[in-house]
Amino acid sequence: MPTISQRGEIMPASPIRKLVPLANKAKERGIKVYHLNIGQPDLPTPQEGLDVLKKIDRSVLEYSPSEGLLSLRKKLADYYHRFNINVDVDDIIVTSGGSEAVLFAFMACLDPGDEIIVPEPAYANYMAFAISAGAKIVTIPTSIESGFELPPVEKFEALITPRTKGILICNPNNPTGYLYTQREMDSLRDIVKRHDLFLFSDEVYREFTYTGAPYISAFHLKGIEEQVVLIDSVSKRYSECGIRIGALITKHKELKKNVMKFCQARLSPPLLGQLVAEASIDASAEYMLRTYNEYVDRRKFLVDGINRIDGCYTPIPMGAFYTVASLPVDDAERFCAWCLEEFEYEGATIMMAPASGFYTTPGMGKNEVRLAYVLQKEDLAKALKVLEEALAAYPGRTTKR
Amino acid sequence: MPTISQRGEIMPASPIRKLVPLANKAKERGIKVYHLNIGQPDLPTPQEGLDVLKKIDRSVLEYSPSEGLLSLRKKLADYYHRFNINVDVDDIIVTSGGSEAVLFAFMACLDPGDEIIVPEPAYANYMAFAISAGAKIVTIPTSIESGFELPPVEKFEALITPRTKGILICNPNNPTGYLYTQREMDSLRDIVKRHDLFLFSDEVYREFTYTGAPYISAFHLKGIEEQVVLIDSVSKRYSECGIRIGALITKHKELKKNVMKFCQARLSPPLLGQLVAEASIDASAEYMLRTYNEYVDRRKFLVDGINRIDGCYTPIPMGAFYTVASLPVDDAERFCAWCLEEFEYEGATIMMAPASGFYTTPGMGKNEVRLAYVLQKEDLAKALKVLEEALAAYPGRTTKR
Repeated sequence: MPTISQRGEIMPASPIRKLVPLANKAKERGIKVYHLNIGQPDLPTPQEGLDVLKKIDRSVLEYSPSEGLLSLRKKLADYYHRFNINVDVDDIIVTSGGSEAVLFAFMACLDPGDEIIVPEPAYANYMAFAISAGAKIVTIPTSIESGFELPPVEKFEALITPRTKGILICNPNNPTGYLYTQREMDSLRDIVKRHDLFLFSDEVYREFTYTGAPYISAFHLKGIEEQVVLIDSVSKRYSECGIRIGALITKHKELKKNVMKFCQARLSPPLLGQLVAEASIDASAEYMLRTYNEYVDRRKFLVDGINRIDGCYTPIPMGAFYTVASLPVDDAERFCAWCLEEFEYEGATIMMAPASGFYTTPGMGKNEVRLAYVLQKEDLAKALKVLEEALAAYPGRTTKR
Repeated sequence: MPTISQRGEIMPASPIRKLVPLANKAKERGIKVYHLNIGQPDLPTPQEGLDVLKKIDRSVLEYSPSEGLLSLRKKLADYYHRFNINVDVDDIIVTSGGSEAVLFAFMACLDPGDEIIVPEPAYANYMAFAISAGAKIVTIPTSIESGFELPPVEKFEALITPRTKGILICNPNNPTGYLYTQREMDSLRDIVKRHDLFLFSDEVYREFTYTGAPYISAFHLKGIEEQVVLIDSVSKRYSECGIRIGALITKHKELKKNVMKFCQARLSPPLLGQLVAEASIDASAEYMLRTYNEYVDRRKFLVDGINRIDGCYTPIPMGAFYTVASLPVDDAERFCAWCLEEFEYEGATIMMAPASGFYTTPGMGKNEVRLAYVLQKEDLAKALKVLEEALAAYPGRTTKR
C-alpha cells in the first residue's frame, strides 16, 4: 500500500480530539455533558443574515470572483473604517473562513524552512497551517502567572534568525482572552520594522473586549502598514461559524498578487456564505449590544466562579470568549478524560480543552484548561458546580496551584 | 519590505488571467463577448437545491463536522452506489469544492519533492495545488493528433522514479473531453499496482458522457481499492459551482486519518453549501436528462461547427463539456488576445482559453484552444461565426493545421 505523507503524520493531534469519543460515550450513558471546550457561539446569527437566504433570487448558484464579491468587500471596508482600520476594497480578499486566510498568508509569505514567532499558548491550528506550508512555528512562552502578557522585546529578538519572516498574534487572544496593550503593540511594531518582518494579526474577536482598554489593530500601528497581514472572520462576531467566510487583508501589493494565485487556484470562496456575511454586517446595534452584554455577563460569572473554587485560578480575560484556568490537578489532560469517563454529578459532567494543546514547549500548560463561555449562564453555573465536585473527587488532585 | 514566498512566484500564471482585463476593456467598448473560456455551467441549479435555502430553520449557522454532515455523506454514498462505486459513508470526506479535495489529497499523500505523473493537457490548477504541497507534477504528453488517448504503459514507467507517489487523471477529462477506455483504465491499474502508487482520479464530470462508451471509475478497478483517491464535486453536475462542495473518497485508513487532520485544521466545510448539495442529489431524473440533452446538443453543434471551419480541427470529445481545438494560427495566446483587443464582428467577439496553459511541455498546445460549451446554442452559433471571421482576418493566420 502506498505510504502517506510525513507532513500529515507530524500534524499535532489536538488533545480535544481524543476527548470527543469519550464525550460521545458519556452521552450514550445518558450523561449530560456541558461543553466548555468549544468556540462555537450559541447566540443566534443576526436575523438579517438568516433572512437573506429566503430572498435569494438566482437560478444558478455560480462561482463568485476569486477575491470575493465586490459588494461584500465594500461593506467590509466600511466596517473596518468604523474601527479606524483604513483599508480599501482592493486590500481585502475574501476567504473560506479565517482558516483559509491563515493558510494562504503562510503559503504566500513563507517558503519551506521559514520561521514565524508566535506567543504561546496559541490557537492550535496555526501549527497545522504552518506544517502545510512547510514552515516552522517558533513559540515564545507567556504564562498564566504573568497574566499572559507579552515578553519583552529582547526575548523576541533572541529568537530571530535569518529564516524568521514574521510574528503572529491573535488579539483579542484565543485561548487566553488576553488583549494586547498599546505598549505591547508598539514593541511589536518596533520589532517587525527593525527586522523587516510580517506581522500576522488574527483579530476575529475585536467586538469582544471588556475592560475599557482599547482594541489596537495591527493596522493602527504607524509605519508598518505594508507589513501587516490581517486575518479576519465573520464567524465569531455574528455567530455564523458554518458559513465559512473570512478575509485576508494586506496593503503589500506583491503579497496581494501572490495570495490571489492561491485564491484563483481554489476558484472561489463560498457564494451563499458571502451573501449571509454581507447581510450580517447590517446587524443592528441592538443585536451587537445584546450579544456583547451576554458575553460580559457570562465572563464575569465564569471567572468569578472559577476563582472561587479552591485551588483554581484564572486571570481576568480582557477579550474574546475564552479564559485559561489552572486547576489543582496532576495533569489536565488526564483530568479532562476522567471527567468524561469516570465522573458524573447529578447526571452531568463537563468537557474542557486541556491547555497543553495550545503550547509547544513540553510541560507547559500541564495543569491548565481553556474554558469557553459560549453556554447560557444557568448552564455555566451547573458546569462550575460539576467542576468543583469533580476536583473534590479526582484522585490526581494536588494542592499546589 | 518583507519578501513574499517563492512558492507563490512559481505558481503558473494562467494565460486566461491575462485575457480577463482585455475582455473587460472590450465590454467597456460596448462589444459583446461570447465566453467560450469558462467552466461555469449556465444551466439552472436544481429547484430542490434552491428551495432548501428558503426552508432553513436554524437560528445559528454553526460549524458542521469537519468530515461533513452525516446526512450528506449518506446521500453521497447512495449516489455513488448508482454508479457501482462501492464506498461507505466512512470513506467520504466532504470538502470545500473539488479544489480542496485535490489540495488535501496532495498534502496528505505527498511530501516535498514527491512526484505525481499527470497526462497533459491537464486542468491547470492541479499544478497550483502541487506547488502548495511542495510536490512535483511530471507530465506525460497526449496529443490532439491521437485524440488525447493515453500513451502506452512503457511511457508511464519510464517516468517513474523513487519519488513517484501517484498518477492523477481527470475522467471524463477537462480540458479535452476525453473518456478513458477500459483498456486504458486497466493499464493504469496495472501500473499503480506494480509500483505501489496512488491513483488520484478526478471524476466530477461523470454524468456527462456522450458516446455510449462506459464511464469507468477508478473505484471500478479490482485490486487497487485502497490506492484510489477519488476527487469529486457537485459543482458541475448540478450547476452549483458557487456552493463549494466537493468530496475526497478513500478506503485507505491511514490516509483518511491523515486527510482528516487537514480537515480538522480548517474546522468545517461550508454548511449552507452542504444543505444545497444534499437537496440537489434529489434532483429529478427529468432535470438530469434535460441538462444532459442540452449538452449533447451543444456538443454536436460546437464540434461540427469547429470542424467545418477551414483549418480548424477538434477530435470528438466523449465527455465533460469542453473540447480542445487546433486553429490555423501562429500562436493561440496571441490570437485569443487579438480577438479581444482588435477584432469584432457585428459588435461581438469571443474569449477562448489558450491551451498552452494546460501543458507544461514548452511549445505544446501552441495553436490550440479549449472551448467550453456552456452557452446556449444560439450563442454558440454566433460565437462560431465570430471565430470563422476572426480567423479570416487574423494577420498571424497559417494554413498548417
